[in-house]
Amino acid sequence: MTDTTSNKMWGGRFAAGPDAIMEAINASIGFDKRMAAQDIAGSRAHAAMLAATGILTDNDAEAIREGLLTILSEIEEGKFEFSAALEDIHMNVEARLKDLIGEPAGRLHTGRSRNDQVATDFKLWVRDQLDAADEGLQALIRALLSQAEAGADWVMPGFTHLQTAQPVTWGHHMMAYVEMFGRDLGRIRDARKRMNECPLGAAALAGTSFPIDREMTAEALGFDRPAANSLDAVSDRDFALEFMGAASICAMHLSRFAEELVIWSSAQFRFVALSDRFSTGSSIMPQKKNPDAAELIRAKVGRIFGANTALMIVMKGLPLAYSKDMQEDKEQVFDAADNLMLALAAMTGMVGDMTAERENLAAAAGSGFSTATDLADWLVRVPNLPFRDAHHVTGTLVAMAEDQGCDLPDLTLEQMQSVHAEITSDVFDVLGVDNSVNSRMSYGGTAPAQVRAQIERWKEILK
Amino acid sequence: MTDTTSNKMWGGRFAAGPDAIMEAINASIGFDKRMAAQDIAGSRAHAAMLAATGILTDNDAEAIREGLLTILSEIEEGKFEFSAALEDIHMNVEARLKDLIGEPAGRLHTGRSRNDQVATDFKLWVRDQLDAADEGLQALIRALLSQAEAGADWVMPGFTHLQTAQPVTWGHHMMAYVEMFGRDLGRIRDARKRMNECPLGAAALAGTSFPIDREMTAEALGFDRPAANSLDAVSDRDFALEFMGAASICAMHLSRFAEELVIWSSAQFRFVALSDRFSTGSSIMPQKKNPDAAELIRAKVGRIFGANTALMIVMKGLPLAYSKDMQEDKEQVFDAADNLMLALAAMTGMVGDMTAERENLAAAAGSGFSTATDLADWLVRVPNLPFRDAHHVTGTLVAMAEDQGCDLPDLTLEQMQSVHAEITSDVFDVLGVDNSVNSRMSYGGTAPAQVRAQIERWKEILK
Amino acid sequence: MTDTTSNKMWGGRFAAGPDAIMEAINASIGFDKRMAAQDIAGSRAHAAMLAATGILTDNDAEAIREGLLTILSEIEEGKFEFSAALEDIHMNVEARLKDLIGEPAGRLHTGRSRNDQVATDFKLWVRDQLDAADEGLQALIRALLSQAEAGADWVMPGFTHLQTAQPVTWGHHMMAYVEMFGRDLGRIRDARKRMNECPLGAAALAGTSFPIDREMTAEALGFDRPAANSLDAVSDRDFALEFMGAASICAMHLSRFAEELVIWSSAQFRFVALSDRFSTGSSIMPQKKNPDAAELIRAKVGRIFGANTALMIVMKGLPLAYSKDMQEDKEQVFDAADNLMLALAAMTGMVGDMTAERENLAAAAGSGFSTATDLADWLVRVPNLPFRDAHHVTGTLVAMAEDQGCDLPDLTLEQMQSVHAEITSDVFDVLGVDNSVNSRMSYGGTAPAQVRAQIERWKEILK
Amino acid sequence: MTDTTSNKMWGGRFAAGPDAIMEAINASIGFDKRMAAQDIAGSRAHAAMLAATGILTDNDAEAIREGLLTILSEIEEGKFEFSAALEDIHMNVEARLKDLIGEPAGRLHTGRSRNDQVATDFKLWVRDQLDAADEGLQALIRALLSQAEAGADWVMPGFTHLQTAQPVTWGHHMMAYVEMFGRDLGRIRDARKRMNECPLGAAALAGTSFPIDREMTAEALGFDRPAANSLDAVSDRDFALEFMGAASICAMHLSRFAEELVIWSSAQFRFVALSDRFSTGSSIMPQKKNPDAAELIRAKVGRIFGANTALMIVMKGLPLAYSKDMQEDKEQVFDAADNLMLALAAMTGMVGDMTAERENLAAAAGSGFSTATDLADWLVRVPNLPFRDAHHVTGTLVAMAEDQGCDLPDLTLEQMQSVHAEITSDVFDVLGVDNSVNSRMSYGGTAPAQVRAQIERWKEILK
Repeated sequence: MTDTTSNKMWGGRFAAGPDAIMEAINASIGFDKRMAAQDIAGSRAHAAMLAATGILTDNDAEAIREGLLTILSEIEEGKFEFSAALEDIHMNVEARLKDLIGEPAGRLHTGRSRNDQVATDFKLWVRDQLDAADEGLQALIRALLSQAEAGADWVMPGFTHLQTAQPVTWGHHMMAYVEMFGRDLGRIRDARKRMNECPLGAAALAGTSFPIDREMTAEALGFDRPAANSLDAVSDRDFALEFMGAASICAMHLSRFAEELVIWSSAQFRFVALSDRFSTGSSIMPQKKNPDAAELIRAKVGRIFGANTALMIVMKGLPLAYSKDMQEDKEQVFDAADNLMLALAAMTGMVGDMTAERENLAAAAGSGFSTATDLADWLVRVPNLPFRDAHHVTGTLVAMAEDQGCDLPDLTLEQMQSVHAEITSDVFDVLGVDNSVNSRMSYGGTAPAQVRAQIERWKEILK
Repeated sequence: MTDTTSNKMWGGRFAAGPDAIMEAINASIGFDKRMAAQDIAGSRAHAAMLAATGILTDNDAEAIREGLLTILSEIEEGKFEFSAALEDIHMNVEARLKDLIGEPAGRLHTGRSRNDQVATDFKLWVRDQLDAADEGLQALIRALLSQAEAGADWVMPGFTHLQTAQPVTWGHHMMAYVEMFGRDLGRIRDARKRMNECPLGAAALAGTSFPIDREMTAEALGFDRPAANSLDAVSDRDFALEFMGAASICAMHLSRFAEELVIWSSAQFRFVALSDRFSTGSSIMPQKKNPDAAELIRAKVGRIFGANTALMIVMKGLPLAYSKDMQEDKEQVFDAADNLMLALAAMTGMVGDMTAERENLAAAAGSGFSTATDLADWLVRVPNLPFRDAHHVTGTLVAMAEDQGCDLPDLTLEQMQSVHAEITSDVFDVLGVDNSVNSRMSYGGTAPAQVRAQIERWKEILK
Repeated sequence: MTDTTSNKMWGGRFAAGPDAIMEAINASIGFDKRMAAQDIAGSRAHAAMLAATGILTDNDAEAIREGLLTILSEIEEGKFEFSAALEDIHMNVEARLKDLIGEPAGRLHTGRSRNDQVATDFKLWVRDQLDAADEGLQALIRALLSQAEAGADWVMPGFTHLQTAQPVTWGHHMMAYVEMFGRDLGRIRDARKRMNECPLGAAALAGTSFPIDREMTAEALGFDRPAANSLDAVSDRDFALEFMGAASICAMHLSRFAEELVIWSSAQFRFVALSDRFSTGSSIMPQKKNPDAAELIRAKVGRIFGANTALMIVMKGLPLAYSKDMQEDKEQVFDAADNLMLALAAMTGMVGDMTAERENLAAAAGSGFSTATDLADWLVRVPNLPFRDAHHVTGTLVAMAEDQGCDLPDLTLEQMQSVHAEITSDVFDVLGVDNSVNSRMSYGGTAPAQVRAQIERWKEILK
Repeated sequence: MTDTTSNKMWGGRFAAGPDAIMEAINASIGFDKRMAAQDIAGSRAHAAMLAATGILTDNDAEAIREGLLTILSEIEEGKFEFSAALEDIHMNVEARLKDLIGEPAGRLHTGRSRNDQVATDFKLWVRDQLDAADEGLQALIRALLSQAEAGADWVMPGFTHLQTAQPVTWGHHMMAYVEMFGRDLGRIRDARKRMNECPLGAAALAGTSFPIDREMTAEALGFDRPAANSLDAVSDRDFALEFMGAASICAMHLSRFAEELVIWSSAQFRFVALSDRFSTGSSIMPQKKNPDAAELIRAKVGRIFGANTALMIVMKGLPLAYSKDMQEDKEQVFDAADNLMLALAAMTGMVGDMTAERENLAAAAGSGFSTATDLADWLVRVPNLPFRDAHHVTGTLVAMAEDQGCDLPDLTLEQMQSVHAEITSDVFDVLGVDNSVNSRMSYGGTAPAQVRAQIERWKEILK
């Protein structure tokens, strides 16, 4: 094929021909510069170890250390010029180090390679995200605990199939999300523990013949231990996948809560009022508040799980050890992490700001025969009917109330006894919504006392 | 929740508190500025129509037109200042228009809304990508045709399960990919036809009471017709999903070819030599050529299908009409499109540059009893054995050759006849690799004549 | 490793050891027997062609034909004994044919292999599903047209962000889904056209030296032409992916409609009443109707897109030609197809049975200042305010109405004129919900006349 | 819509009309009967607790216990008749219990509902799978340890980009997979700990007013504690997602190993010989062994991650508490679990059976200048060149050897000194492949001593 033909194709975007295309597809500096701080930290730890083990002179190590600190400053101050011709963050830093300190720069790469270097940088970056997610989840849980505490005994309808089923408390509903985000916290922490092994010193793939001290670099970088197999150390991206897997489940939880906030904000529900800060208005309809933040949060599970999918496909069927395919890992993780943190922060802000519309919740809780189950339970507990018979009696009474356009507590005792003779006036105690929720005292139930106990437990956990 | 608590969480990234978070999650200008040209084209068409229908005065329309052209120049020259506070490309352009021409700017938005505007912009952008993919696929097919033409009769092993099965020709193998990318072309073209309906004038969701002419704007923007339902027009993202679905299948094809190139480049295979331009070397092993471009191309299906997954999840369960979740559509499509075009260009370049190692291919084609099937077919055709019996005789002969450390053509006629008496010396005609491929004259078969016929057919198609 | 160790692992499920494991992972007869009819049709076409081209005697061909018909009857009557030891449907049929007719059975496999045979069977199966989806979509569109026709002028709220935006008509909302399912129909039909090429005769991968007539078998099986490259013909699963891609988008549409039905069925909305047949009750709360069918339909996009994901991952990076990985294609497609047809049928049934709660829709349509946009448009159209100014005036009036606890039409002319002097009593014409929808006469708008025109267009299309 | 229209559509599959469709989409007994044992175990624990807390008489509890045991026997013996009209496993068991013991059956459902019942059953089922995966992973690790021990010092090429990079040992390569599957084990165990909380007693969603003892049922079923929030307990499917996430990463690891086995089995590599049991042959080419099992294992990550995708999409945006969408959880998890266990068992069998082709591995390890890095390291270590200079000298020597058609150890000392004068004859010590691997003594390196240390560590872990 002649260049003429191919240039026609590259016309638009790749007018400069093959070399430009190769640079475009190959260079990673456009995104891996986000790992500059991690790269320099790794090189500093490596240089210190090379000096401690006598592989490097103290003078060289000191020159390297100072050179790296200079580069870090240049990057932080935005003065560093990244070069696509130098491909990646590692070569950009190394080339600049050579400019700054000359020959000793060439000794830094002893006993390591780009393969273990990029694995180390990337693990350090992901570890920071796990820590940020930990913090973000804790903040969200605290915001939920505040809501739960304020409304531990506010009644609202509990739904199944978006149909009123039984009354629950606002606090109980908030605490359901605390449990979910609590599990997310557990996953994040397990992932952090598992991934905290240092690849540095695995070299290209086989380890090295230099007498390096991998324990020392691992410790300096906050890892629990060095990775135990050099082939695996450079081929492994489990830590990225596990982070995105945990992030996806967390984002799914956020999507469920966001969905509820969107529905609850509708004119038909009016269960909550979102703050102006987390909604957008309309110049034409000033009363209107669009739950934009909730909708955007709802969408994030797509993006995060999409990134998880992308990396899973990339890793499928890759032979050991390093293949260039793996360079596709970073942008996915960067995007997933950025969006998880953003979604957690936005949800935390929204939860902190939102107001439960207590009267509307109470009104909805009391409608729709929501205490029918309480009546049935009373029939089991007091006149000792079998569960299925109690259901039948209750159904008849609900139908009677519906016919008369009233709710269960509005029926008279006589009407009730016409269906089942053993019903006594005590039954009215269980038909009220407040009594209903107060009675659900089983562990983990919706009774305010149970809810408050769970709030205390979580406060203790987060201490 | 107090701001103190929340600020702790927002600490790192969101120090500025809720307002900064809301802007970060809500503003789209960071990415939707890529649609600036489309946005301005849409506004120009809308203004011209408003004038033609008398909704706008000619003077106002002319002022708007000139203002929009000025803005386009500013953007193209990099002088335009995008503002995150103005949220998106539409408001950025409109605000600047007001600066430039004053009051008439406020009349441009008559009979439309941001909902149909963004749908129109995005469709125009995606349509450009479909056209770019069309061109990119044609260039790749042309590169493959050149390879196929040069090696229409070069023999190589045909594999199943990566085990040698039967000899095929290099041209035939290249043409298999022409068929695949040809189907991709068909999907791209069908998608373009289906999506080419104009949302402009759907307004927020209900249409408008202004006497707009939707046929006119549709035609001005190159659409085949206006979209037929205003609710659907602003809620629809099928065109983005269909594009990414077609792109995913195309990227999967690219991953298969890339996998072959990686395997074929290994020291164990040496079926192809990639050019220096599309591989990377090692300062320490100058003979080494890493197939980096092929590996990166192999990975792209992950990214593109990941983007498809993301948007599918976003759209799941969204009620009509516009929800803010849909703002997550663009970054996915942008990334998928960029990477598809890059992968097509890189593959086209690599195919244009690569050299088939003809001798290695031929040697491999002739080993491993690759003509056993030809022998079996001869036994069916000439002495008229049933297929399953012919298989059995062939198996015995292969085993005999293997025992003697030779291949099938090296057996003597006597040895053959000891297994089946009706074998004659004519059988040797079918045992050679070249004879084998030449004999596969069924339509679509590997015979060079068949391959050349298919090359001609495709040249005709691409004319 | 000793068998003892491994048996420990296989203990539970694989007590029988390696051979049982290999059979479990390798045999496909457990699922590919669903393609029995297709397999026999393919073999019949192949045998007839072999006879027509003289490769087979007429006697043999006739014996094969009758044998195959016998087998088909046995399968249809449930008398056929499928054997896992024979691995797949092809070998099961062939073995039975040998039982029935003896030696000629061994001649059927001339000029083909299992690779092109399975590709042919599977394509025929998928083609049937495309036809079933076509029919299913038409039925659903017809059900939607009936709903649209009945309620072409029933008003309801049009939502953005699940917030009331503007009034629309029930018919218009139904027709939005007609557009969506109409595009699905287009995708299904394009997919059918593209995939309708016959792999039979591609043999193992290279074509064959027998003088077969691929046009003849292609035609007999209803294909438009034979596949043009034998390597591609046995390696291609695009048709399965394209079907699942189209099915996924369709299922996403279904999920959106299902979501609306769930929300609309809630006590807070009461926009529709689902029939008893497509909801489930509660013995205890007889008034309750859970929208189970809608929820299950909403979920199907997960399953179908999950199947699409599965096959995309399977195909990633597979070298040509056939690899055993491809055997994983069928179960995914079977499950996706079954669930798509089920979801289409259930939605069609639900749409046919459901009742719009006309009064509730109308009441909701008239609340929430839903005609604010109409007021603004009037201010542009009549006193000729710029759009953005008209918005401001409208906003002030909405705020005034809100303060007074009334809606826009309840304000007096004087109150209105206090905000903008040029407002006249004509304005009240546009503030009514019916007038609002009637005014949206732009093409594709919500005006009943527009809706009815679209209904007619679709009736014509479906004729 | 009339039934006539709809019947046309339902024609094929749903001839019986709406009721048949609803049953088809709604009933779960077709798959949830796999949880029969779990359902009965849960009911037995519940009944025992109801008796212990005095909610049920001892007589009733005893009748229930015996009835349940009878049902379990009936199911195990295949005598139980499952009914689709009874929808699910819970109702099937309850109905049969009523047949067997009459009235007391109606008392079993006190203080629970189908929502907590299904969550409990499903968790018990998934927990069993986590245990099976644990066992399966251990068996696979043991098989790998056996291979690693046998070949701790067998040399083979270490690849990057499928290009020879440095020699490694067979044992080291096997141990890389031990690390991967070891992490999978960790994920499985963490998932088990996190999910081991009992939903039983959460009732429909709000808890119950009966004085149940949730600690008691939790303990009886082997849970660590009762779930702490009843709303969450019935809405949570994290445990299924986390299992499938861990299973997906494990399947990805399997796909990488399977890819290597496929490549290593090719005629071009011949690094391993798979056993007949885990490959398939060809009647026509008896020497041929297709790595079918490896290919099928490679494909499983598609299926398992596809199932993960499906459930993630299903759960996206579901409001609390139970929605019927969640019924789609089981088939995905069943399929993912079945295929994970099958893939683990098949890989374990294959690893146990396979033979490393030691001579081929050694020959490949010594070619391709694989010790160039060792030479460069020697130049750093002995004459103390900076790393980058050592690379340059090495590159020149490799080029020289390539020119002369030999490998590095074949150059004379004079030739070497012509490039760099300080090279001494000691250099030849590092150019041999065995010396190379023996020198990689850094922790986790490829030196046989390091590999053996890791084998011992893992034996200790698995004890």
